[in-house]
Amino acid sequence: MKASRFFVSTLKEAPADAEVASHRLMMRAGMIKKLGTGIYTYMPMGLRVIRKVEAIVREEMNRAGAVELTMPVVQPAEFWQETGRFEKMGPELLRIKDRHDRDFVIQPTSEEVVTDIARQEIRSYKQLPKNFYQIQTKFRDERRPRFGLMRGREFIMKDAYSFDRDLDAAKASYQVMAQAYRNIFDRFGLRYRAVAADSGAIGGDLSEEFQVIAATGEDAIVYCPDSNYAANMEKAEALAPAGPRPAAANALEKTPTPGKSTCADVAELLGVPLATTVKSLVLATDILDDAGNIQGAQVWLLLLRGDHDMNEIKVSKLPGLDKGFRFATTAEIDEHFGCKPGYLGPLNLKKPVKLVADREAAVLADWITGANEIDFHMTGVNWGRDLPEPDLVADLRNVVAGDASPDGKGVLAIERGIEVGHVFVLGTKYSKDMNATYLDEGGKPQFLEMGCYGIGITRLPAAAIEQNHDERGIIWPDALAPFTVVVCPIGMDRSPEVKVAAEALYEALLAKGVDVLLDDRGERPGAMFADWELIGVPHRVVISDRGLKEGQLEYQGRRDTAATKVPAAGIADFIAGKLAA
Amino acid sequence: MKASRFFVSTLKEAPADAEVASHRLMMRAGMIKKLGTGIYTYMPMGLRVIRKVEAIVREEMNRAGAVELTMPVVQPAEFWQETGRFEKMGPELLRIKDRHDRDFVIQPTSEEVVTDIARQEIRSYKQLPKNFYQIQTKFRDERRPRFGLMRGREFIMKDAYSFDRDLDAAKASYQVMAQAYRNIFDRFGLRYRAVAADSGAIGGDLSEEFQVIAATGEDAIVYCPDSNYAANMEKAEALAPAGPRPAAANALEKTPTPGKSTCADVAELLGVPLATTVKSLVLATDILDDAGNIQGAQVWLLLLRGDHDMNEIKVSKLPGLDKGFRFATTAEIDEHFGCKPGYLGPLNLKKPVKLVADREAAVLADWITGANEIDFHMTGVNWGRDLPEPDLVADLRNVVAGDASPDGKGVLAIERGIEVGHVFVLGTKYSKDMNATYLDEGGKPQFLEMGCYGIGITRLPAAAIEQNHDERGIIWPDALAPFTVVVCPIGMDRSPEVKVAAEALYEALLAKGVDVLLDDRGERPGAMFADWELIGVPHRVVISDRGLKEGQLEYQGRRDTAATKVPAAGIADFIAGKLAA
Repeated sequence: MKASRFFVSTLKEAPADAEVASHRLMMRAGMIKKLGTGIYTYMPMGLRVIRKVEAIVREEMNRAGAVELTMPVVQPAEFWQETGRFEKMGPELLRIKDRHDRDFVIQPTSEEVVTDIARQEIRSYKQLPKNFYQIQTKFRDERRPRFGLMRGREFIMKDAYSFDRDLDAAKASYQVMAQAYRNIFDRFGLRYRAVAADSGAIGGDLSEEFQVIAATGEDAIVYCPDSNYAANMEKAEALAPAGPRPAAANALEKTPTPGKSTCADVAELLGVPLATTVKSLVLATDILDDAGNIQGAQVWLLLLRGDHDMNEIKVSKLPGLDKGFRFATTAEIDEHFGCKPGYLGPLNLKKPVKLVADREAAVLADWITGANEIDFHMTGVNWGRDLPEPDLVADLRNVVAGDASPDGKGVLAIERGIEVGHVFVLGTKYSKDMNATYLDEGGKPQFLEMGCYGIGITRLPAAAIEQNHDERGIIWPDALAPFTVVVCPIGMDRSPEVKVAAEALYEALLAKGVDVLLDDRGERPGAMFADWELIGVPHRVVISDRGLKEGQLEYQGRRDTAATKVPAAGIADFIAGKLAA
Repeated sequence: MKASRFFVSTLKEAPADAEVASHRLMMRAGMIKKLGTGIYTYMPMGLRVIRKVEAIVREEMNRAGAVELTMPVVQPAEFWQETGRFEKMGPELLRIKDRHDRDFVIQPTSEEVVTDIARQEIRSYKQLPKNFYQIQTKFRDERRPRFGLMRGREFIMKDAYSFDRDLDAAKASYQVMAQAYRNIFDRFGLRYRAVAADSGAIGGDLSEEFQVIAATGEDAIVYCPDSNYAANMEKAEALAPAGPRPAAANALEKTPTPGKSTCADVAELLGVPLATTVKSLVLATDILDDAGNIQGAQVWLLLLRGDHDMNEIKVSKLPGLDKGFRFATTAEIDEHFGCKPGYLGPLNLKKPVKLVADREAAVLADWITGANEIDFHMTGVNWGRDLPEPDLVADLRNVVAGDASPDGKGVLAIERGIEVGHVFVLGTKYSKDMNATYLDEGGKPQFLEMGCYGIGITRLPAAAIEQNHDERGIIWPDALAPFTVVVCPIGMDRSPEVKVAAEALYEALLAKGVDVLLDDRGERPGAMFADWELIGVPHRVVISDRGLKEGQLEYQGRRDTAATKVPAAGIADFIAGKLAA
C-alpha cells in the first residue's frame, strides 16, 4: 500500500473521554472514530488490524473443523422467548419493534439462533460432532460503555457453537476448541494465559478464559509460577488452612473503638494485624410458600478475615444460598443485630442468624469483631467459648498472593488480565429449552450437548495495545500490525535516487509477500517517524540521499532504541529475516 | 475442503413461500436458511459464495483507490436528523431506542455517517479526492420482503462514498467507480448491462445502474442492439415522432361504448388499432398561499396513446408538476369532468384543466377518447378543430420495443434485469445539510461534492442464479461458485485405489490453487451427483474403479450434456485448462 492511496490521520491529542492507553492511542492513531457512546467506526488503519485478527481466527477455526456461517444481526424475539432470555436479560439486550410491531433483538450472542439451526439440520448421531461459527457484529447496550473498543456497545465477536451426542463428546469438542484458541493466541504474539473459569451448573474443568496480560486489565488472574495452575479470581480456590485452630489465650472484652467502623481502622487503633479482625457480611434469602409468595426471610451472617474479600461466585454455590440471595435490608439488620452496619458481629444477637465462616476465619483464635453496639468491638473472641461453632465453614473468599496453589505445587501469584476469549461447555440448557434433539443409534431422540466459544475480535486490538505501548505510541506484534513494514523515504520529491530506491524496496517487499506501506506523502522526517511510531508499525526502513551515497539504509524495529545501518543491496532479505524471527 | 469437514445440506423440496428460482434453489441447496420474514442465515455453502462476491468487490475497489472502513450498524439518530431523513424516511428505516431512551437507527445506507467522518477528517483540498467504502450489514424494513435474498430486510451491501472539490472532479471520481464496476461485473462472469438511470436533481449522465440480465428481473432495461445505448425504463427517452400530425379526415362523433371503460376494450369494440385511442390520466397539484396552507388545487389532464404507459419520473419533472403531484380525488374529477373514470376525456369539460399531451398523442389525427359521459366515447377527435392545442407537449411515456433509439443509431429493444449495483453523483445535498466543507486554495470553505456507489452483495448471488439455472439446479460461473471443482469418488470406502486417486487429485488441485471439494461423505453416486448439480458446482470429476482400470476419469462441466473421459495422468492439467478458459 502507498500512503497516498490510503488514509493516514493522526491526532496530537486524544479526546478527554479516553481514559485508558488503548483508547487514547487508537483515537490518536486514527484507528477508530467515535460515532456515539460505545459506538465506533473502524477507520481504515484500525480495520486492517481487525481484519488480521479475523484472518488468524478464521484460519484456526477452519483448521479445527469448525464451519463458518453468518447469522442475522436482527433476530426475531420468538427464539429468545423459547429460552426465556427475551424476558430474563436486562436492558443490555437491545429490543426493537419492526413496522408490524413485532419484537426483535439485536444479537448480543446467538445461542438461540444456532440451536434453531441445529434442531432443523441435525437429525442423526451420524452428523455429530458439528461446530458452527460466525464472525459478526454484535450489540450489548452496556450500562457503562467505556475504554473505546474495550467495552463498546457495538462490537465484532467470533462466536462458535459445538453440538455433540453426549457430555464426553462435548468435552472432546471443547478440548479441540481450547487447543485452537491456544494456537490463535500464540499466533497473535501476545502474552496471555488460559485460566480456569467458573463453569456454572455444568461443573468440572469445562470453562477457560483467555486473558491478555496487562497491568490495566479489569480482571485479576491467579496463577502458580511453579506449575500450570491458572484461574480467574472467581474460580481460584482458597485451600483450607494447613494448621489447626490455636487455643484461646485472651479473655473476651468489649473494647471502645469510637468512629472506627472498618476492620483496617480497628486494627490500626488497637495496634494488631488486620488478619486478627473478622468482618461481618449480612445476606438474606427469602422464604417462599408453595405458591411462591414471600413468607419471610432467613438472615445469614458471613464472617471473613478483615484482610480477605468475599467471592460472590463461591457464596452463590453454598447450600441454602445457591437459589439466590441478596444483601439484608436495614430493617432486617436492625431486627437481628440491634445495631447499624460498621459494628456488626456474631455476639449479642437479638435474633439468631445462620452463621457461615470462611475457612480462614474459622481457624482464628482471639479475634476481633463488632460488638453490635455503635463505637464498640469485641476482642479476644474465640469459637466454641464465646459463640457456637459456625453452622457452615466454607471457602468464601478471593485468594490473595502467597496463598497455597490448589494443585499443591507452590504459592499463588496474581496479575491483571483482559478477557478476550472464553471457551465453555453449555450442556443441554439451550437444547432442552428449544427441544433440539438428534436420533441416537437406537433411533431414540436425545438432547444435543452444546459448547460455546467466543473471541472478542474488536476488543483484542485494544488488549494488545494495553500490553504493548510506550510513550510514543502503539507497539504491534507483527501478526496484528496494520502494516508490518513502513518504508520512509526522506525527500522523495527532491531526490530521484531516493524515489527509485524507495519504490524498488517497496516492490521487492511486496513480491516477498510482506505487508509493506510506502510513505509517499512527502511529510517531513520528524512528523513521518512520529506518525508511524504512534501507529505502531513494528519495522521501519528509512531511505535518504546521504545513506544511499554510502550504500546504506537505516532499519529500526519499533522497540529498538536506535537505528541499524544495513547495506542497501541486502535490505529486502534483511527485513525478511527480521519477520521470520 | 473435504465434505466431511464441511456442511452439505440439500432439500428435495423448497418451502412453499419460495416463489422465484433463486429463492427455491438457494433454500434447496442449503445456502440460506430463513430466520424470519426477509431475514436469513447465510449457511456455510451460501456464505462461500457471498465471500467470493466480497473478495472481487474489495479487490477492485482497492485497485480503484477507494479505502475500506466499517461504519456502525447501529447509528445515533442525531446524524439522521441533521439531513431530515430520520423524519422523512418511511417505516423502512428501522428506528430503535436504547436503554436511555435515545433514538437510533439501523443503517439502511451510511451517507450521514460518512459525511460526518468527512467533515471531521477532510480539511484541505490537498486531501481530495477521497473515497471511503464498507462491506457491511444493512437493514431495510421492507413493506413486502420477498424472493429470499433478492429483497430481504437484512442484507449485506458494499457502499462507497466519494468526496471531491467540485462537480467536475466528482464526475471524474464517478467515472473511476463506473469503470471499477464494469471490472467487477466482468469478473463475476454474468451477463449484465450498465444502464443510464435518472440522476434526480443533478441532471446529466451521472447515474448508472448495473443490471444482471434475467427474464425474471423486476426492472425493464431499454437498450439499442446496434449501439451502446442502454437505460432503465424511468430514464429512456421516447423521441419526438418523426413525421407531422396528419390532417383531420373524420367527423367528430359521440359513439356508444357500453361497459367499455378501457382503451383496449374500446379499440376491440370499434375494430380500430389501440394506437388510435387516447387515455386520460387526471393529476392534481395543490395551490399554497405564502404561509404554505392549501388554498385550492390545479387539475391536470395527461393524454397518452392507449398503447402507451405513463412514466412517473418523466411526469415528475414537468414544469408545474416538479414540486410534487398526486392523483386527483373523485370530487375533483367530478367537478371538472362531470363523469366517473373510465369515460374521461378532454372534450365537454365542466371546468378547464391543464392539458398535457404525450408527444405521440399530440401528433394523432382522428383519435378516440372518453366523452365524459358513462358508456360513450368520442371518435374522430382532432386537435385544434375539436379542442385547443395542448398546454404542453412532452415525453410522458415509457418507451416500447421498436421505438427509435435516442442516440439515433437504430431501434430500442427491452429486456428484464435485476439491479445489483448503482453509481450516482450526489452533489452537495448531504454536505450542505451537514455543513461538510474543505478549504480551497484560497482558504475559503467549500462544500464537498459527493458521489455514492452501491453493490448488493447478498442480492448478487440471487441474481446470478436467476440468470443461470436449469431444472437440476444452480449453474454458477466459476468466479462465484462455492467450490469451483468437486471430486466425486465412487465407492471410496470399498476401493483403496479410488480413495488414493481421489485424495491425490484433491491435493494436486489444491496445490494449483483450485478451490476444490472432495466429496468423501460416502453417498451413492446418484445422490452425490444430484447434490452437486443442485448446488451448481461448475466442474465435476468422477473417479471410479472401472475408470481407473482404464486409466480414465470422467469430467463433466455443469452445462455439459455428457461426461468426457480424460486420462487419469493428465487430469489436474486438464482441469486447470478448463478454469483458465
